[in-house]
Amino acid sequence: MDFSAFVTSLTTSFIIFVVLVFIFTWLSRIPSNDVIYYPNRILKGLEPLEGKRKRNPFAWIEEALKSTEEDIIAMAGVDTAVYFVFSSSALWILVLSSVVLLPVLLPVAGTNVSEKSIADTSSNGTFNNLDKLAMGNVSEKSPRLWAFLIATYWVSFVTFYVLWKSYTHVSNLRAAALGAPELKPEQFTILVRDIPPAPKGQTLEEQVDSYFRALHSETFYRSMVVTEHREAYKIWKELEGYRQKLTRAEADFAKSKTRPTNRTGFLGLIGKKVDTIDFCNEKIKELVQKLEAEQKIAIKEKQKPSALVFFNSKVAATSAAQTFHAQMSDTWTVMEAPEPRQLIWKNLPIKFYERQLRQYTVYAIVFLAIVFYMIPIAFISALTTLTNLRKLLPFLKPIVDQPEIKTVLEAFLPQLALTVFLALLPAFLMILSKAEGIPSESHVERATSGKYFYFTVFNVFIGVTIGGTLFSSLKTIERHPHTIVTLLGNNLPQNATFFLTFVALKFFVGYGLELSRLIPLIVYHLKRKYLCKTEAEVKEAWAPGNFGFATRVPNDMLIVTIVLCYSVIAPVIIPFGMVYFGLGWVVNRNQALNVYVPSYESNGRMWPHMHVRILAALILYQVTMFGYFGVKKFYFAPFIIPIIIMSFIFAYVCNKHFYPGFCFTPLEIIAREDNKEIPNMETVFEAYVPSYLSYDKFEEADQFEDARSQISRTGSFD
Amino acid sequence: MDFSAFVTSLTTSFIIFVVLVFIFTWLSRIPSNDVIYYPNRILKGLEPLEGKRKRNPFAWIEEALKSTEEDIIAMAGVDTAVYFVFSSSALWILVLSSVVLLPVLLPVAGTNVSEKSIADTSSNGTFNNLDKLAMGNVSEKSPRLWAFLIATYWVSFVTFYVLWKSYTHVSNLRAAALGAPELKPEQFTILVRDIPPAPKGQTLEEQVDSYFRALHSETFYRSMVVTEHREAYKIWKELEGYRQKLTRAEADFAKSKTRPTNRTGFLGLIGKKVDTIDFCNEKIKELVQKLEAEQKIAIKEKQKPSALVFFNSKVAATSAAQTFHAQMSDTWTVMEAPEPRQLIWKNLPIKFYERQLRQYTVYAIVFLAIVFYMIPIAFISALTTLTNLRKLLPFLKPIVDQPEIKTVLEAFLPQLALTVFLALLPAFLMILSKAEGIPSESHVERATSGKYFYFTVFNVFIGVTIGGTLFSSLKTIERHPHTIVTLLGNNLPQNATFFLTFVALKFFVGYGLELSRLIPLIVYHLKRKYLCKTEAEVKEAWAPGNFGFATRVPNDMLIVTIVLCYSVIAPVIIPFGMVYFGLGWVVNRNQALNVYVPSYESNGRMWPHMHVRILAALILYQVTMFGYFGVKKFYFAPFIIPIIIMSFIFAYVCNKHFYPGFCFTPLEIIAREDNKEIPNMETVFEAYVPSYLSYDKFEEADQFEDARSQISRTGSFD
Repeated sequence: MDFSAFVTSLTTSFIIFVVLVFIFTWLSRIPSNDVIYYPNRILKGLEPLEGKRKRNPFAWIEEALKSTEEDIIAMAGVDTAVYFVFSSSALWILVLSSVVLLPVLLPVAGTNVSEKSIADTSSNGTFNNLDKLAMGNVSEKSPRLWAFLIATYWVSFVTFYVLWKSYTHVSNLRAAALGAPELKPEQFTILVRDIPPAPKGQTLEEQVDSYFRALHSETFYRSMVVTEHREAYKIWKELEGYRQKLTRAEADFAKSKTRPTNRTGFLGLIGKKVDTIDFCNEKIKELVQKLEAEQKIAIKEKQKPSALVFFNSKVAATSAAQTFHAQMSDTWTVMEAPEPRQLIWKNLPIKFYERQLRQYTVYAIVFLAIVFYMIPIAFISALTTLTNLRKLLPFLKPIVDQPEIKTVLEAFLPQLALTVFLALLPAFLMILSKAEGIPSESHVERATSGKYFYFTVFNVFIGVTIGGTLFSSLKTIERHPHTIVTLLGNNLPQNATFFLTFVALKFFVGYGLELSRLIPLIVYHLKRKYLCKTEAEVKEAWAPGNFGFATRVPNDMLIVTIVLCYSVIAPVIIPFGMVYFGLGWVVNRNQALNVYVPSYESNGRMWPHMHVRILAALILYQVTMFGYFGVKKFYFAPFIIPIIIMSFIFAYVCNKHFYPGFCFTPLEIIAREDNKEIPNMETVFEAYVPSYLSYDKFEEADQFEDARSQISRTGSFD
Repeated sequence: MDFSAFVTSLTTSFIIFVVLVFIFTWLSRIPSNDVIYYPNRILKGLEPLEGKRKRNPFAWIEEALKSTEEDIIAMAGVDTAVYFVFSSSALWILVLSSVVLLPVLLPVAGTNVSEKSIADTSSNGTFNNLDKLAMGNVSEKSPRLWAFLIATYWVSFVTFYVLWKSYTHVSNLRAAALGAPELKPEQFTILVRDIPPAPKGQTLEEQVDSYFRALHSETFYRSMVVTEHREAYKIWKELEGYRQKLTRAEADFAKSKTRPTNRTGFLGLIGKKVDTIDFCNEKIKELVQKLEAEQKIAIKEKQKPSALVFFNSKVAATSAAQTFHAQMSDTWTVMEAPEPRQLIWKNLPIKFYERQLRQYTVYAIVFLAIVFYMIPIAFISALTTLTNLRKLLPFLKPIVDQPEIKTVLEAFLPQLALTVFLALLPAFLMILSKAEGIPSESHVERATSGKYFYFTVFNVFIGVTIGGTLFSSLKTIERHPHTIVTLLGNNLPQNATFFLTFVALKFFVGYGLELSRLIPLIVYHLKRKYLCKTEAEVKEAWAPGNFGFATRVPNDMLIVTIVLCYSVIAPVIIPFGMVYFGLGWVVNRNQALNVYVPSYESNGRMWPHMHVRILAALILYQVTMFGYFGVKKFYFAPFIIPIIIMSFIFAYVCNKHFYPGFCFTPLEIIAREDNKEIPNMETVFEAYVPSYLSYDKFEEADQFEDARSQISRTGSFD
């Protein structure tokens, strides 16, 4: 890629961004689009724009910049606030690094004029003017390399400093959230798995009750054995369908004053014609009875070896969740219960060793996928050079040979291929992570994020770096694993411009699309016009979903990795990284305040995961630098080794100092004075009853149920 | 070593053994030796021989065989009982293995007559007739190797079976001991370390009290901050000295009716002459006051950042010990308190990261020691061949050249050198382990045992195997680490006879000395005659000490490793192993019932340590077999790999199933119904007060103290 292609790519990206921002400004002012641009505010019962519809088109930026962390926590929860800590940590690392790196390294590199480097630059077509400002321009063995060595240390220390501050901050955020006096049912609950089979003549529930009552005689409240309720869920779904139909029919009736009718057969096209309202009422009545019967069966006969156990004090539940209960420690395993809304019911009864087996199987699959994904990516990288395209698809020749199109294509094709490729992954990884037997959504999202991170780093970063230029070197690595250091040092610098455009594409096009929400907007309008009839359906059509950390975090992490690794080799990348995280911060701030609605709250449980990965990126960077100093034949390259060791020590200390507080709830946080009152325990218990197993909801929703259900309900759970 | 040398070595060992057993039978019948041969019975207040002094000289064997596990627990505690589970597990593994291996493998190997194997045997001087019965005698690629492959599996499965049974058994022993209703102060206590500095205006003790009272308002009883009490201990020692002197002087006075006198100067040789009884009384009075003052200072002003916290319920203490207390998890770290008698006070206040640092430093030192010990051992092995000895020390020639002496020396020298060498280690390792900052004696003993195990396996086993025959191969391993498998397979079989004699020496001479207790006997008689004057001093002279697991277990483990590794290669070693563990069981049983007095009780905490090491020996054996099948060019050698993987899975499952129950006290055990009564908490607290900090003891011991001390005591701790 030559310099003009680079500039074209940048310019195009920027124009797309400007257009998208313009679209956003225009569309977001139309009141009917409020549900797309301000759903979070609407769901929270706030005015979409606080009465400032005719304001400055860039007011959203001001709003985003002005919002405090408390605002974010109030509007989008602690997890989102922690995501912003992550963004701003990345930004701070880059800003502090740039303070030294840009004014020092650019002149040091730029003023180095050696025969060899000039010869290099002109002989190799993929190099461009930017490389004059990179470490590649410095001669071998030059004393100027000292500046780069010191810069490596500077970046590392800056990272340590920022990460330590951030970890402390997040730890306090988490402590504040956990220690808040408001009622969180999960703080009174523990999740028990691997319950051994009940002795003869006892149900599982009786066994659980007697076991925990004996161990926690004063604090045990009651237990809820996990049941197989798929059947009940199916009936409930059908019931909900008829309820919606009924609502819609009643709406139609109110409008047209004629009683709507429908056919009972396939898709309402064949079969007997019936009065819809009567028919639905009939059906609902029938299904409610069926559901009730099924619920009883589920609760009594389909008990599974897992349970939620409720305590009447937070301290008791916290202690119990951290204490080994059984002599054989693979039975009666306990943990802090996840929030009710993020429980994955079907994973709860999976037994201990099956979980382990599933986990290792999934790891093996992911490993194979990572290794063999490299091949198609390398293939696509090779394919999407224009010369190859022309050869392989000769009918494209007339188009491709036009100079403007050629430049644009040359700039975009490789990145686009990569981006599309990576878009297919998350769903696959999410399914795999769920199959591990993890009990909560937030944990699944974390696990997916971890897997996706390895994918992006191995396939995009290392794959492009080594595969793009030296695909055959894969075999070399296999045979002599330690050559990876030299290999990284050798190949990384050559791909600097590729990654510059990659980062730019990510932030301009990516954040442009994010902000303008074009796709959700189109989908919503189509749905509303052709599909939705009831209010509930419309609401579902614009439901904003959550932040999607499972893909957002690894994508950001990829940028962190790229920018850190190139920070000293080609310091021009730092401003790009700064724009990525700066722009990202503003855009996401707007989205967090106005758009997304988090579907769970894990109180910053994601942070240690991010922290470790930033550190991993740092260590990868240090190792790369070690390799590159070796390539530059710098005698003092081993001076990098101490900072690598220090990174490991830093990781170790952070892990000991902060991490357990994220795995478990520390007593000192939960036992604050205002946390000691005992809530209405029935409320806590009911929070965990799935809606299709709760009779109460029917009572509110329709009039067919009488007080009898209340009695039967209590009866069936006790 | 030829066959006659081997037989000579065996015979000599056996004769020594018979002589030692005879000595034991004779000496143990002399009543004045009872304190050497029956100290445990005497200390427990039992009749040494139950009135059967003139019984059958081998009655002790019958007694040992008849004793049940309950007897052992009653006489020597759970730890000793667990040691016997270990012995009998090893024995059972060998017995069950031998059932298949001896009748199958010996004929299969013995009847194999191939040109090559004969040539091998006759050409190599170190081989002997025994090798005809070993795997070395089987031709390369022979289908007979299938028998050896299946035997490898058999031994592995037998080991799995026995280990699983034993682990279950020990786990139940531990549960029974922990769940017993008798008062164990440590079950009401947790050890808190890494207490952060107290805020201004608060003492550490006030801080600890308010912290735990807030978190465990209903179950917290009181706390005891660890203090620097070395000074108090010194004064107390001096005081004790004067007390003994006083008792002795009073005894003299009663006998001779003249008041004894002494000089106050150096060693009682110079200075003023004084009346001893008056002088001692004076001194004691003075020192008691000094001690009291020092105690107050220690308790009030020398508080260290560590504390024991007492709870009024076992369940509360157990839960608290397993729960993270502080947000920053490297502060306020908690663990179950060790027994009072095994607390290592000076290690308690060591801070978290200092402990880590100490630990890794010690590991590094041990690693270096292991690696560089190999050199002297290899040197000694090379030196102690007679040919070398004659060359190096020419003056020994006339002695060494006599054929009888030559045979004996040849048989013993290498083993003796090794044994003496290894005898110097444990003390060094014990000091290192203590320096790690471990808070309890039992843990230190475990840590020492682990280090000693690595020493013996690496230096004796691998060192002799590879070093003795192929010292230069060390460099090969360093360059190509995976060649260790081939190397083991290549060299192990050649050393079979060395290890046969090594095992025989261990059990005949080792257990002979153990049983006869010659050295303690001689030391005791010398001390009694020349040093001891008071009853207390005599008692100290015959104090039997404890079992010394730190060296006993690794020594046994070395035999397990040797016998397992040779079990299939040279099955003749199995009977030797059986004799070792069989004889050991009987002898140690006698020692446990009559001699040793355990100084602490860890309720079988040692078992997981033994279990893992037996498994490690098994895996080493499997890897060796894999290598040896390779050397034998057996095409189906990779069939060994599944059993290696199975061993790891077995280790993993055991670790998950049993291990946490050994690290922590499971609630289900501690919360049994009869365990719920609240004891006199002051007794629990006092159990942890060191004798030189307790005022109560003075009150019993002498009359100088008045009721005032009781008040000041309570005052200073609250």
